[in-house]
Amino acid sequence: MKIVQIGGSGHYYQVLDAIRADRDLLLAGFAPGSGDEDCTELAKALEREFGTEIYPDFLTMLDEEKPDIAVVNPYFYLNAAISKEVLARGINCYCEKPVALTLEELNDLENYYRKSGVHFAAMFEYRCSPAFAAAYAAVKEGKIGEPLLITAQKSYKLGTRPPFYTRRETYGGTIPWVGIHAIDWIRWMAGQEIIPDQSFHGRKYNSGLGELEVTAICTFRLANGGFATCNIDYFRPAGAPTHGDDRVRVVGTDGIVEVLRERATLIDKDGEHELPAERGKNLFQTFVDQVRGTAKCAVSAEDSFKSTEAALISRNIADKNM
Amino acid sequence: MKIVQIGGSGHYYQVLDAIRADRDLLLAGFAPGSGDEDCTELAKALEREFGTEIYPDFLTMLDEEKPDIAVVNPYFYLNAAISKEVLARGINCYCEKPVALTLEELNDLENYYRKSGVHFAAMFEYRCSPAFAAAYAAVKEGKIGEPLLITAQKSYKLGTRPPFYTRRETYGGTIPWVGIHAIDWIRWMAGQEIIPDQSFHGRKYNSGLGELEVTAICTFRLANGGFATCNIDYFRPAGAPTHGDDRVRVVGTDGIVEVLRERATLIDKDGEHELPAERGKNLFQTFVDQVRGTAKCAVSAEDSFKSTEAALISRNIADKNM
Repeated sequence: MKIVQIGGSGHYYQVLDAIRADRDLLLAGFAPGSGDEDCTELAKALEREFGTEIYPDFLTMLDEEKPDIAVVNPYFYLNAAISKEVLARGINCYCEKPVALTLEELNDLENYYRKSGVHFAAMFEYRCSPAFAAAYAAVKEGKIGEPLLITAQKSYKLGTRPPFYTRRETYGGTIPWVGIHAIDWIRWMAGQEIIPDQSFHGRKYNSGLGELEVTAICTFRLANGGFATCNIDYFRPAGAPTHGDDRVRVVGTDGIVEVLRERATLIDKDGEHELPAERGKNLFQTFVDQVRGTAKCAVSAEDSFKSTEAALISRNIADKNM
Repeated sequence: MKIVQIGGSGHYYQVLDAIRADRDLLLAGFAPGSGDEDCTELAKALEREFGTEIYPDFLTMLDEEKPDIAVVNPYFYLNAAISKEVLARGINCYCEKPVALTLEELNDLENYYRKSGVHFAAMFEYRCSPAFAAAYAAVKEGKIGEPLLITAQKSYKLGTRPPFYTRRETYGGTIPWVGIHAIDWIRWMAGQEIIPDQSFHGRKYNSGLGELEVTAICTFRLANGGFATCNIDYFRPAGAPTHGDDRVRVVGTDGIVEVLRERATLIDKDGEHELPAERGKNLFQTFVDQVRGTAKCAVSAEDSFKSTEAALISRNIADKNM
């Protein structure tokens, strides 16, 4: 199966892991996502390890290689524009999140997808991480009954950020960039659509990073009458033991499931139990499985679009509250 | 110092602990809060241990005993009405939360307080618990810089609840009864006023308990541009190791403080540190100290009124969303 990669600015290393593990996968081509994305070192490394052909321009690459799958991983404000080119050519598209920065762009992308007949998935790779997958499995198996109240958290170290993070036009906002994972967990664990309600975000003390928001909260209504909230921040101190402090907690009628410190826990009528970590899957591998027709991708196209939509609507609400 | 107790339906045992520990405190009288509150066993026990005089009627008791302090602990929908009688007589008033069930009642009570010249405090006893006090001390000492994002949680076992919990008129709502603690932590940790914004609560799967809400979320804006959220539920399974799962997390510009599983943690530039638990104080003892003029009560009258107000406004917002 022939794969090409466009850009090297995100979580593509998962793709490389999958290619290393599956001899039927070939990384045939690589091109930067844009002229200003410096991928020299990455291109050299891919050429060396995988014998990948390097192209200066991704459109030429798509047309010459005619790959089965394109991995879209440019500066992420180009995700939608590049994915459209991929889908227009009937190529399966594995795209960094957020897949679009505005609702208009998202709607446009979704239309390209509907006409394409191929698979499209956003890199919501937490769905394959051992603790989150274990929590989801418990919810899915009915161990907490009906989910009624969900809370989720993303807390990141700010570190250094490239210049395009400082402008809304190119960054999109912290809710779509960071919060989107928490929002996707809420949708996923709820097993139903979520309706963005109130949201806030703030730029105060953002270390001079222009329009980048460093705090946010979003609330959602669940279709079943339940509700959810997530909190997002970039204030995890440099001295913290890990980059992120990712959490989700799902309160159901018969139990509570939680992911905290990369461990999943269930509390039910019999007490508190640590859930055995699911064997970590590779999201891209599940994408390949779906293209092959052997199994379903852990992230559907609908998941990709709906979670992005919820994030963009939440950001828009937060903007109105600024 | 002469103390009387009205009613025995809440957290009065703290008061008894303080009396046991301080030989200058005398529990002179006890009366039920209402004719339908059965305090027979408690009255006998108080009589036996403290030589307390038992009255059938609290007004008679207040007028005959002329105590320094009255502890108001009836069925809690009577808190405001009884506290008004206490304050009208110029008696210091230590009152179960919520101190009122409606904004009108709260406003009325506050007017009585303003004219009374005595101290009034709600039983926000978590302020004296070792982990919460340690977290607050760290925030107060500036260890996290300026608080920008606060999340808090109350999760309780439902257990069995007396009939008055099933009617809004007598119960007041889960946000004022349970959530009020989380709301008080947010105000306290923020060190500034909080403005209720959006709130939800739900009665779905409330085990047939009428109007009792079993889930809730509230959001708040902080005066400094920050924001906060709290989530509340009665779905902690019977098998859980403790009755409650109380949490607060305060994200500041220079660090993050958290209370989780009754331990307080600080993350700052040097890493993650467990905070030494503060020596647990007894809130009622600090109330007595303020009446004596030797120290300040850990809960001011303003705290009592403002946190209650935020809870009642949040509940009213949630009602509109039902």
